Amino acid sequence: MKTLQVALGARSYPIHIGSGLLMRPELYRPYLQGRQVMIVTNETVGPLYLEPVQKALQGFEVHTTVLPDGESYKTLEVWSRIFDDLLAARFARDCTLVALGGGVVGDIAGFAAACYQRGVDFIQVPTTLLAQVDSSVGGKTSVNHPAGKNMIGAFHQPRAVIADTETLKTLPDRELSAGLAEVLKYGFIRDSAFLDWLESNMPRLLDRDPEALVYAIGRSCQIKAEIVAEDERESGNRALLNLGHTFGHAIELGMGYGSWLHGEAVAVGICLAASLSARLGWLTAVEVERAERLIASARLPTYLPKELTPERMLELMAVDKKVLGGQLRLVLLRRLGEAVVTGTFFQDALLASLAEQQMQVTADKRLA
Amino acid sequence: MKTLQVALGARSYPIHIGSGLLMRPELYRPYLQGRQVMIVTNETVGPLYLEPVQKALQGFEVHTTVLPDGESYKTLEVWSRIFDDLLAARFARDCTLVALGGGVVGDIAGFAAACYQRGVDFIQVPTTLLAQVDSSVGGKTSVNHPAGKNMIGAFHQPRAVIADTETLKTLPDRELSAGLAEVLKYGFIRDSAFLDWLESNMPRLLDRDPEALVYAIGRSCQIKAEIVAEDERESGNRALLNLGHTFGHAIELGMGYGSWLHGEAVAVGICLAASLSARLGWLTAVEVERAERLIASARLPTYLPKELTPERMLELMAVDKKVLGGQLRLVLLRRLGEAVVTGTFFQDALLASLAEQQMQVTADKRLA
Repeated sequence: MKTLQVALGARSYPIHIGSGLLMRPELYRPYLQGRQVMIVTNETVGPLYLEPVQKALQGFEVHTTVLPDGESYKTLEVWSRIFDDLLAARFARDCTLVALGGGVVGDIAGFAAACYQRGVDFIQVPTTLLAQVDSSVGGKTSVNHPAGKNMIGAFHQPRAVIADTETLKTLPDRELSAGLAEVLKYGFIRDSAFLDWLESNMPRLLDRDPEALVYAIGRSCQIKAEIVAEDERESGNRALLNLGHTFGHAIELGMGYGSWLHGEAVAVGICLAASLSARLGWLTAVEVERAERLIASARLPTYLPKELTPERMLELMAVDKKVLGGQLRLVLLRRLGEAVVTGTFFQDALLASLAEQQMQVTADKRLA
Repeated sequence: MKTLQVALGARSYPIHIGSGLLMRPELYRPYLQGRQVMIVTNETVGPLYLEPVQKALQGFEVHTTVLPDGESYKTLEVWSRIFDDLLAARFARDCTLVALGGGVVGDIAGFAAACYQRGVDFIQVPTTLLAQVDSSVGGKTSVNHPAGKNMIGAFHQPRAVIADTETLKTLPDRELSAGLAEVLKYGFIRDSAFLDWLESNMPRLLDRDPEALVYAIGRSCQIKAEIVAEDERESGNRALLNLGHTFGHAIELGMGYGSWLHGEAVAVGICLAASLSARLGWLTAVEVERAERLIASARLPTYLPKELTPERMLELMAVDKKVLGGQLRLVLLRRLGEAVVTGTFFQDALLASLAEQQMQVTADKRLA
């Protein structure tokens, strides 16, 4: 087991990463203030992992809320059912919520913990690679609104994160790859040595080798934790974590939510960021090609779907911009392993990158 | 105009108190980060004060949400409509909400500000005495759940509070008195000199003399601000602010919400706390009588309604206790001007105090 500490002053917390952790009582106990524990999970994850978690919590007053599975249920309505259950069981302010599942369960349960009696403790037990490397660090909790993703939420840090790599054994291949997109993102943002390691160890990760997974998850969480510790409320550097995401959100929206996985869209987004960075003279064609090869090696897409023309992509990216207000800013790459946020780029260069990433030309012809 | 500062580090904010303040643009401007402002008000307050506030915000992109009036609308459902309006108007993260109304509007709008895009700014413009001396300080925001009051919410501090004493001119007499119950509470908790002042100036306050109101509101906010600064998240001393409230909640619940005003129930609650404190030997009979006289002088009740027998009160107080978990703790008075939280008292003494406060015996016969 590997343990990282997320340094946030009084809100600091540990992330435990390893095999078979979710059944270990001693990982929960130090963080349970009172006797009442509510496990929030979903219909898919519950049948697989609810029992061992309940066993680990033996001796406590444990209740369970099972949510429907899927991003489309990340709503205020589903969220509010958790309060019905907490109040029916007369849960006190010293209770603890345990979020057992992927990113959606973590987001809803975390947001419920943020608001129940103005804030109670929660423990994250992420069961997907994406949730282990992304949602479990940083304290962002939320639900969606019909008019926009994650529009209603709170910053609320967990008391502890228990990332059990055993749970990844039951993860579908496509979701494993989608999680690897976020892992790769951390390397691109600020760790070229980690990129080298990923290049050599991608086959082991795809084989779900526990040791390789623990290393990759640990390094990812460490990088995210460093960035979040510098900027908990996202006023500056934390925006770097959005590498590939402005493009990615446009793809998800353009293709209809649920058609592309978030990680798949981010993968193409990183390729687009690399391409535009090359046009600004920051990356060489060889580096862009290396980035694409690495992403493809994780069985992830690197090109825009045909439906999304450059003009359509610009439109879709403007939705994000209008909802959030202000000017379009992108996260680009100064080099492989160093991301920067910039509002300075030429619209034509952006259009050209969108076009070439669509037409599937090869990298070496690109800047000729 | 009097200005107090609530000292909460990076979340510090000013409370401006005076006559004609809500129409002064310079009190809003320093706290408006972006151009978008959403005024949240209700059907009763809107027609009276919306126009001058809109005028003060001229030059900004101002939208308005009008909520139905009353505690029964302090629900998740009404709260969520604010997000519909914010998103329909494409409000960005640098927008500001202005809560124009009493405690209910402040609680709902504040909680919406806490959660919109994980937290945006808000300014409180409280228009009732209760809201000016109570809800505008401390950052508690919430909505009710059918199973309990204020069960869902967040701690979210306003950027500024603008307490305009002009708005109290349109306040019904009964609500003015209910607000004075909370003003008196601050004196009982920790300021005997303020109690002396209130004893001499009660007629001026009931006449809505602006100068007397500014002083009483200012001193109340100052005491609350000191206590909140010591204990922002209510782990210790902040519980003192609940003087009279455990009894008060039981009365409100027992009589049916809306039948007694919150301040009226708190007034009787303070009398009960004084009576029980006398039984513990902390107050003299003369002091209890003085407390009751002072409360009665604000045209507030000092006795329990006949329906609420001692046994029924105990039952009702246990509901609060069960919902919140743990043991019944009460805020009592060491002396007039010094409250303490205690879990140590005899059940029989409590029953006796409940009985005598119901039977309307006079204070001098009480401890014979």
